Amino acid sequence: MHTMTMSNTLDSIIDRIFDSYAAIGGINHLHGPNLPSMESIVRIIYDFESVMFPGFKTDESIDEQNLRCTLGENVHRIVRSLSAEVCKSLAFGARDGSSNSDGSCLDPAELEGSRRDADAITIALMEKIPAIRKRLRMDVEAAFVGDPAAKSREEVILAYPGVEAVLIHRIAHELWQMDVPLIPRMMSEYIHGKTGIDIHPGATIGDYFFIDHATGVVIGETTIIGNWVKVYQGVTIGALSVKKEEANVKRHPTIEDEVTIYAGATILGGKTVIGRGSTIGGNVWITGPVPPGSKIYNKPVDYIHRRPPASNLA
Amino acid sequence: MHTMTMSNTLDSIIDRIFDSYAAIGGINHLHGPNLPSMESIVRIIYDFESVMFPGFKTDESIDEQNLRCTLGENVHRIVRSLSAEVCKSLAFGARDGSSNSDGSCLDPAELEGSRRDADAITIALMEKIPAIRKRLRMDVEAAFVGDPAAKSREEVILAYPGVEAVLIHRIAHELWQMDVPLIPRMMSEYIHGKTGIDIHPGATIGDYFFIDHATGVVIGETTIIGNWVKVYQGVTIGALSVKKEEANVKRHPTIEDEVTIYAGATILGGKTVIGRGSTIGGNVWITGPVPPGSKIYNKPVDYIHRRPPASNLA
Amino acid sequence: MHTMTMSNTLDSIIDRIFDSYAAIGGINHLHGPNLPSMESIVRIIYDFESVMFPGFKTDESIDEQNLRCTLGENVHRIVRSLSAEVCKSLAFGARDGSSNSDGSCLDPAELEGSRRDADAITIALMEKIPAIRKRLRMDVEAAFVGDPAAKSREEVILAYPGVEAVLIHRIAHELWQMDVPLIPRMMSEYIHGKTGIDIHPGATIGDYFFIDHATGVVIGETTIIGNWVKVYQGVTIGALSVKKEEANVKRHPTIEDEVTIYAGATILGGKTVIGRGSTIGGNVWITGPVPPGSKIYNKPVDYIHRRPPASNLA
Repeated sequence: MHTMTMSNTLDSIIDRIFDSYAAIGGINHLHGPNLPSMESIVRIIYDFESVMFPGFKTDESIDEQNLRCTLGENVHRIVRSLSAEVCKSLAFGARDGSSNSDGSCLDPAELEGSRRDADAITIALMEKIPAIRKRLRMDVEAAFVGDPAAKSREEVILAYPGVEAVLIHRIAHELWQMDVPLIPRMMSEYIHGKTGIDIHPGATIGDYFFIDHATGVVIGETTIIGNWVKVYQGVTIGALSVKKEEANVKRHPTIEDEVTIYAGATILGGKTVIGRGSTIGGNVWITGPVPPGSKIYNKPVDYIHRRPPASNLA
Repeated sequence: MHTMTMSNTLDSIIDRIFDSYAAIGGINHLHGPNLPSMESIVRIIYDFESVMFPGFKTDESIDEQNLRCTLGENVHRIVRSLSAEVCKSLAFGARDGSSNSDGSCLDPAELEGSRRDADAITIALMEKIPAIRKRLRMDVEAAFVGDPAAKSREEVILAYPGVEAVLIHRIAHELWQMDVPLIPRMMSEYIHGKTGIDIHPGATIGDYFFIDHATGVVIGETTIIGNWVKVYQGVTIGALSVKKEEANVKRHPTIEDEVTIYAGATILGGKTVIGRGSTIGGNVWITGPVPPGSKIYNKPVDYIHRRPPASNLA
Repeated sequence: MHTMTMSNTLDSIIDRIFDSYAAIGGINHLHGPNLPSMESIVRIIYDFESVMFPGFKTDESIDEQNLRCTLGENVHRIVRSLSAEVCKSLAFGARDGSSNSDGSCLDPAELEGSRRDADAITIALMEKIPAIRKRLRMDVEAAFVGDPAAKSREEVILAYPGVEAVLIHRIAHELWQMDVPLIPRMMSEYIHGKTGIDIHPGATIGDYFFIDHATGVVIGETTIIGNWVKVYQGVTIGALSVKKEEANVKRHPTIEDEVTIYAGATILGGKTVIGRGSTIGGNVWITGPVPPGSKIYNKPVDYIHRRPPASNLA
């Protein structure tokens, strides 16, 4: 193709894409406030990890001399970035109907209000860091105790995806409880992509929670999980109904304290309660309540062709 | 180890690795044209996402003033990079036997031909962007309507891995249909790594397609999927036979319109058709045809140890 | 919030987080030697991939003129970085009780010893590269032969997550056998996040190993796998017991030569041996030995609601 023709063709293509932005609504975000940026959210997550597990996530040697300084820098950077992203989220929420249902942009007074709210939310989250760290120590302990392959707590912090996913969840859940739109789900989706663990930020999760092997775990929005619960790869704690009009009811199970759920098990429904101390075997499918202390396994299934065909043996 | 010895040892190791490049064939790409670069493919994917969902994937504020300019830059960048990568792919394809079975490098005339073909293919893909955007709007709608936990369409675009995987698939599939080697699979593998959704670029997928929770979904090369199909995590739409000599027959199922397939279901075989409006329950295993409107669930299995052992209760 | 108040609030938050570092032990790494850095490990992995598959993982054209030079640079960079990270790991291991159980920092003589050991371990690994490449060629061949959708060996190297995961495993396993703490698990967790394949670096894996579709595969620490074994997505080769005190016994199965394990199958237990030439069907659950040449499939389960309800048909 000649350069001239190529250039004309491209201009015409660009025109048609541009026109399609006006014609095809619903997937353009061009009017109104900016949306939160996934790139910023990811940087904020890195900084939170450094604050939560000091000395683990950085190339530089950290000791008591430089620790306070490094910590201060991290906290200031988180506050600056997170407050800006929360402000965008609140402006989006306001535009989206919560407080400003005509869909127009925020006026300066409203924007100033969003900024103040964003600062307050960010500070409220930062205030909770010592309490969150206390719980993360319990999560690390649960992983170390719960996996014979774990050689040290340091290995658990450096190389266990379940621990990282729960760390992010505990932060995202705080933002969720303060009604921040978009950001909690962006955080949970980032760590879902990284670890294969999909925990909705709405889920309520107790202490000493351990997810081993990670890939394929799904925990729904209205799930409630107690203390000392252990979950393996491929476990779904999900909804029976996916009717949009039931979005505000409890659609996901309650898992009481000291329950272990083995790989591939599926537990569904908002009225499903797995009683304290129960064990749910691998691949078990549950849609109703289970009394405390139960041990539920699938009956061994019948196999076919159990014996080897003679011709197949060496 | 003394520095001198260390240096000699390293030299000798490098020599032996270098020699192994000659001795161990089949995993070296040293002769002939360069292969497409995964790094470039990933940058092209980012740019496509910005073009498809303007205002969602960038840190900067986009409005109608700068939109045309940003769009133009993105389109030019995609065309420049993609055409170069497609050219490498076509040169590889030619070398690989399609048109130049002696394995030698392309001569200048052939290379010029590859360049022209690469431009034409790239332009043909860009021409389809408005049509692809129209279909992506339907995919976003299907996700928003299909998940009670989705609070807004913006959240769906920002944080639903299924939507991103389908976006990439719709682009990769166009390149696949134009017989571009390697690149469609590199695109699908990039998004497989990111989302846990493995859609072969050869698969044909209709409108309003929604994959929820993403992790572990596999959709094979010759699959055909209708409109308004919904698929959950861990679903396999795969082949019964994996004989290399059957590579050119339809090995994967057909899923008709308005079918829902719940988590962990497995549907196998090229002659398997799931009839219109059917529901396939979680973990169901299907290797034959299912009539339209069917609802197929596993019979509740028997459990063992259903009651709690007395000693286990607090 | 006024800037002044904001600044005071932040100072007080930083103080409280800082205090929590002293109060909440077990998740801080502040005293003693630095831990290995995940960022460095990831860069080392990239360099290993370039050395193993020359010409595949780089943007620049590689030919026989510049190959030796590029190879030399890569090898020197790996040796420098890996030796530094291994040294940190050994110092951590020494601190952790193996050779210095009082938990104090290493003295200069010990540190010098760690450095020498780290160099020796790194060189020993580099010496094995030609042998590892030989095995990787077999793994590529197994993937190409084993998947009808694979169009070329180049596609297998560029776009098959199973091949990349096995490459990293073969390197991590060598370090594991030389008793390097932390790094082997950091490598396996990096590639787990990228591909959804979780192979513990302790697992012993034979030649011509192929994992297709990748997501959700788990292979435990004491697993032994023979030659020409093929594994599909969602397969678990795991432990029956998760008692910490049994960490040193064989807890995971043995899979003999020429076994194929289809998607979602679960094979558990240290005494479980899957005999040579067996086929394990999708979703099959196995906790005991299987004789050679067996073909084991679940009996087709009963379905409910098999026929369509009249009202449901268009």
